[in-house]
Amino acid sequence: MKIFAAYGGPPIIKGLVRDIRPIWALEEIGAEYEISWLDVRQGEQRSDAYRKLHPFGKVPVMQDGDVTMFESGAICLYIANKYGALGGPSGSAAWNDVLQWSFAALDTVLPSLFNHFVWANFMSENDASPAVCADAVETSAARLDVLERELTSRDYIAGSELTVADILLGASLRNGLQPDVLGERPHLRSYLDRLFERPAFCRAFNLNLAGPNANAAE
Amino acid sequence: MKIFAAYGGPPIIKGLVRDIRPIWALEEIGAEYEISWLDVRQGEQRSDAYRKLHPFGKVPVMQDGDVTMFESGAICLYIANKYGALGGPSGSAAWNDVLQWSFAALDTVLPSLFNHFVWANFMSENDASPAVCADAVETSAARLDVLERELTSRDYIAGSELTVADILLGASLRNGLQPDVLGERPHLRSYLDRLFERPAFCRAFNLNLAGPNANAAE
Repeated sequence: MKIFAAYGGPPIIKGLVRDIRPIWALEEIGAEYEISWLDVRQGEQRSDAYRKLHPFGKVPVMQDGDVTMFESGAICLYIANKYGALGGPSGSAAWNDVLQWSFAALDTVLPSLFNHFVWANFMSENDASPAVCADAVETSAARLDVLERELTSRDYIAGSELTVADILLGASLRNGLQPDVLGERPHLRSYLDRLFERPAFCRAFNLNLAGPNANAAE
Repeated sequence: MKIFAAYGGPPIIKGLVRDIRPIWALEEIGAEYEISWLDVRQGEQRSDAYRKLHPFGKVPVMQDGDVTMFESGAICLYIANKYGALGGPSGSAAWNDVLQWSFAALDTVLPSLFNHFVWANFMSENDASPAVCADAVETSAARLDVLERELTSRDYIAGSELTVADILLGASLRNGLQPDVLGERPHLRSYLDRLFERPAFCRAFNLNLAGPNANAAE
């Protein structure tokens, strides 16, 4: 399996580029994979050749035999199903919860956190109006309160074991760390500690940070 | 199967409430289902009883035997898989494309359209800064250009047949209609005409519009 990943972006987005999600999943499984690196400083993700794989010109793309797929959510579900791991295969007892929480991570939890991350870091104070930012933080707080309650009763979001839903949720919640808007939510904080201390996450994070020079930099 | 849906919201969100997505899918299939209506004027979606089904207090929720699920994306994939229709079951030749385009609809196409819809309709001009709105329209335009190109070569987003990915994409694109930021993109426009002229969409839209009084209003 090959994952197309990006490097060369500004420091603040390192550890946030969405290729970290399938790479983290593959590291958890111990699956063999290779990475094809795209240098965003050269705009390689917008080349005609790459847009044949990903029409939106983003990362990640996955190639597995004759299957080519974009969208990190779809790729993570594909990986869980293919390897029968991280909540998969589809049809497992956990699958409906994995599906539900995977979409919840990307469609209910992420949007307001991502909006605030972008405005706080990439827009001047004049451009990102205080009202819009406050609205994003307020919406995020409501979502995070729900996660805090859910995580009082279990270690992972779809049950007692790590699934791809945790990978998508954990990766999404990282958008709330710069600046930190996650607040004092002890169960959510210890959930994130549990995720981000995992060796598989650390390897994926290091790759996301360093790009193709990851090994040379060690 | 039972779908929990909302009514009583402001006129502008009618036809946009996310319960339209699984109801449209079920209408396409001709499956038997019932709707449990929640009056948002009474805050019924935030009651303790309802939050046991949907911790975020939103719609839709699906109940099918002992399966309870929230998140419209997850529910639509569940329905396609259960009925072996609209691109399903999972494992069909089209499934990887259905997965990919379902996530693309909700995670790549919808966010900027939805942001702009909210700011243009629910915030004063002072609160929603012009720069933030312009950024959302610009991002949307880039996404819509890709869809326009994709839809030159096929009638539906994941191939030659309607799938749940079209339901999720079509429902998402409706957020770009008030105000209309979809622009002059003839293939995208005829795609939307094709979707919104479908009798199953019209029935779901009418329900979304009228709530439990849909039949009485006819």
